[in-house]
Amino acid sequence: MSSKTEVAEVSEESLYRIFTIPEAPDSTLSKIEKHLSENLMGFLGDHIVAREKPLQEIERDFDRSQIPEEPQFVSDHTEFLLDKLVAHSVHTASPRFIGHMTSALPYFLLPLAKLMVGLNQNLVKIETSKAFTPLERNVIGMLHHLVYREEATFYNRWMHSAQHSLGAFCSGGTIANMTALWVARNRLLQADGNFGGIAADGIAAGLQHYGYSRLTVVVSERGHYSLSKAADVLGIGRRNLVAVPTDSNNRIRIDKLRETCEAISAEGGKVLALVGVAGTTETGHIDPLDEMADVAEDIGAHFHIDAAWGGATLLSEQHRSLLHGVERADSITIDAHKQMYVPMGAGLVLFKNPSLVKSIEHHAEYIIRQGSKDLGSHTMEGSRAGMAMMVFSAMHVIGRRGYELLINNSIDKARYFSKLISEQDDFEVITEPELCILTYRFVPERVKKALENATSEQLARLTPHLNALTRYIQKRQRETGRSFVSRTKLTPAQYHHEPTVVFRVVLANPLTTHDMLEEVLEEQREIASKATSLRGALHTEMRELGMLN
Amino acid sequence: MSSKTEVAEVSEESLYRIFTIPEAPDSTLSKIEKHLSENLMGFLGDHIVAREKPLQEIERDFDRSQIPEEPQFVSDHTEFLLDKLVAHSVHTASPRFIGHMTSALPYFLLPLAKLMVGLNQNLVKIETSKAFTPLERNVIGMLHHLVYREEATFYNRWMHSAQHSLGAFCSGGTIANMTALWVARNRLLQADGNFGGIAADGIAAGLQHYGYSRLTVVVSERGHYSLSKAADVLGIGRRNLVAVPTDSNNRIRIDKLRETCEAISAEGGKVLALVGVAGTTETGHIDPLDEMADVAEDIGAHFHIDAAWGGATLLSEQHRSLLHGVERADSITIDAHKQMYVPMGAGLVLFKNPSLVKSIEHHAEYIIRQGSKDLGSHTMEGSRAGMAMMVFSAMHVIGRRGYELLINNSIDKARYFSKLISEQDDFEVITEPELCILTYRFVPERVKKALENATSEQLARLTPHLNALTRYIQKRQRETGRSFVSRTKLTPAQYHHEPTVVFRVVLANPLTTHDMLEEVLEEQREIASKATSLRGALHTEMRELGMLN
Repeated sequence: MSSKTEVAEVSEESLYRIFTIPEAPDSTLSKIEKHLSENLMGFLGDHIVAREKPLQEIERDFDRSQIPEEPQFVSDHTEFLLDKLVAHSVHTASPRFIGHMTSALPYFLLPLAKLMVGLNQNLVKIETSKAFTPLERNVIGMLHHLVYREEATFYNRWMHSAQHSLGAFCSGGTIANMTALWVARNRLLQADGNFGGIAADGIAAGLQHYGYSRLTVVVSERGHYSLSKAADVLGIGRRNLVAVPTDSNNRIRIDKLRETCEAISAEGGKVLALVGVAGTTETGHIDPLDEMADVAEDIGAHFHIDAAWGGATLLSEQHRSLLHGVERADSITIDAHKQMYVPMGAGLVLFKNPSLVKSIEHHAEYIIRQGSKDLGSHTMEGSRAGMAMMVFSAMHVIGRRGYELLINNSIDKARYFSKLISEQDDFEVITEPELCILTYRFVPERVKKALENATSEQLARLTPHLNALTRYIQKRQRETGRSFVSRTKLTPAQYHHEPTVVFRVVLANPLTTHDMLEEVLEEQREIASKATSLRGALHTEMRELGMLN
Repeated sequence: MSSKTEVAEVSEESLYRIFTIPEAPDSTLSKIEKHLSENLMGFLGDHIVAREKPLQEIERDFDRSQIPEEPQFVSDHTEFLLDKLVAHSVHTASPRFIGHMTSALPYFLLPLAKLMVGLNQNLVKIETSKAFTPLERNVIGMLHHLVYREEATFYNRWMHSAQHSLGAFCSGGTIANMTALWVARNRLLQADGNFGGIAADGIAAGLQHYGYSRLTVVVSERGHYSLSKAADVLGIGRRNLVAVPTDSNNRIRIDKLRETCEAISAEGGKVLALVGVAGTTETGHIDPLDEMADVAEDIGAHFHIDAAWGGATLLSEQHRSLLHGVERADSITIDAHKQMYVPMGAGLVLFKNPSLVKSIEHHAEYIIRQGSKDLGSHTMEGSRAGMAMMVFSAMHVIGRRGYELLINNSIDKARYFSKLISEQDDFEVITEPELCILTYRFVPERVKKALENATSEQLARLTPHLNALTRYIQKRQRETGRSFVSRTKLTPAQYHHEPTVVFRVVLANPLTTHDMLEEVLEEQREIASKATSLRGALHTEMRELGMLN
């Protein structure tokens, strides 16, 4: 059981060894690694326990309050990890787990991730990253081109310029959105006359100098929660993130948007930024970006697009036009760890104008000195890993055309699933897929028929029962562990905006087959058939409403 | 050269393969991986080119502005990475590279990193992380105990509580510091009467409600630049991060701190937080934390400690007392990717009071729902990788006593190096090590003697020449690639606070030997001997100052 690199005594020699002596090829950890390399899906399938263990039980394995005093053998620790951690992880790569935005990863990224960790570069500055800095700027430049399609001369001039940035690599979309709004906020309340600028003097002084009663950010009611968090962090306040109603396809209503902006102005407020959503998290719908850009232009606001999910659609010539107007955004968020199939931790924000980042530029004595090319002078984070390599490699090995195929297939699969659902007597699609996300629910056949002519009052009374049923099915299915869909709450126009719990599926995993989708429905139907008390309550309610003949 | 998993055509089949067929054992990538596993230092030494290539040349390899249209063979791409990226990366693990806070990594973390990437969990919510959530809470709990040493009952009660957090895992120290100040800011300007609280209504409304003219954060002049960035992001303003003078050991002066706080109060401002530094980035010195806690208590301010670097010192019983008073902090930042020897991307902020995070709590419909144990409801970031596993494993395999040995050895080594430098006729220590960081510079022997009795004017005229020489040596040494120290600018009391450029070394790499330290000095002396024009200018200046006899 023991291997050469294990440490179970505390001595300088044993410590020195963990830094210098590799894992023995026959050690537990080396065997795991081999299994990962040779058959990742097999490893995950073998080690992750399907049936869900209650969280409270898992917590008992992680309840020691003190750092262990004595060292542990690597092999013993690895056994613990397999047994207690890996076994009760989530099989995010499973093609039957279609509820998350996390999907399978290409094989070649695993050894590359190990290389990245082994190199352990820090991208805050050239001194600790060297070639990784130009590489990251290159990744940002290529994605900038994907969105903005500037000429080659533009990229020659700006991509590696010390005083400019075409964007910033972030740990994820939340920091990317926050960075975009930080830039917009600082640019709006910039230094002017005696006023030193918001970066130096703070928001209150900025509002006073410019004579605004408040700053607002305007987004559709389907905007991601990170925007509200950003409004809090940036000192703007969550109430000043103003939500605009959407149409029946979850897209922002331009008339309402204009009204909202006018109302804010009329009372002395200032719209700092409009945020367009390109791929809502819950339904995958895309705002009318081009029309939003018109509004932003008219009112002189920064136009940011949150395309954390949908941005990768630009890789598809066939579907690119869904994001019509995207090139008019002042900034845009794209998460490479979503539809670009790289591991967690690869968010990006891109800036149309390479000088925008001046408003957040910062320096220090020992790093990110004035004039240096250190990436840290234009990022919200400080020390960061070389994740950009994962994106760079994926873009090269898959290629633009490879991505196009992946994205087109995902959208096709979503359309197939939508059609499949609508053919069932006891399921219904709630939101049709524009990208590869759709929502639906189970509705017993006779209820489904009755809903067709239901009054508002009947809907109001039936929906909570259907919601309970949807919640129950989703939870049971997850616990059983064969397949997984997520759930959310929407206010569908066709159901008089009654708060409606729905299944949400994301069909980005290239390994998900049509058969698997049929099985997901079959399993849900089966679970529903056993939910006798919930169905009984629904039945009673219908009888009381006079909806049963 | 070709291997089974390569993709050079765009077809569904070829794309399907990169997700399903492992890298062939004889592929370029598999060979690299084997090399990494068997001899990491050998791999890095073989592949990283020692002599520095000018950045402009490296940029030429990363100047394509478009995502490649066609896919590339994995093997071809890997060759490119080896040749253009790895070759010109920084050998952060080298024991002769003592200028960074990044050091060697224990071997066992490499396969574990691959396992982490393969599992691709997302810690924003239980649904995509499962056992990783209790694990992360456990890591935070153990580090909380390291700092605050509460009873086991405390951890039983709070560690896994849905509505509480003992801290937050972050991508790095910058986000950790920002999170701490976010919490402090929101707690100070909390909801009250008609006022909805800063989180909802923003800073300006908060200042008005509470009648403060401005919010300030007070820290020593050696505070990390991330605090100033945080003041900007949080809407407080960089000018409201008030710097307090330090004593000759770079520690905040408590008398000046009290004066500063009183002055802020007197003019209607409010001190939101005091920040103690436990391990300044540049010199490794630790503020008098206990006395700072007294001040914070007296003025009713949040007390945050930035121990991104020095926090791990608490693992050493021998040196723990250097952070005397640490347990009085309301919050503390510790970077595990620094002195805890895990890969980049593992920052943490800990909160003494598990309810503090209420002030930043947020929810959404589809995740981090009210009452869930989703970690995302108390973090600044959204989607995050399972880096906590790296910290968990390192704590178990190294153990508290193993860390103690590593930390004690680092400090001993720094003391040895300081003694070695002071024994030289042509070097001088500028700041003595309190932790394992020290600064020094090269000073030609006759200059060194002359400096002993120099007047302020003479110092003012000589220092720029010595600064130029230090910069030159540091740059040449880095370019040559045999060894690396960093540099920064200090204002040493012994040199009448003249801005002085110094070499900065961080002796955290357990593989750095005494011999290597001697060689670093020898190489610097050698480079200095060839800096004839800089030395000539220094000589001329001295003659003009009448300092040569």
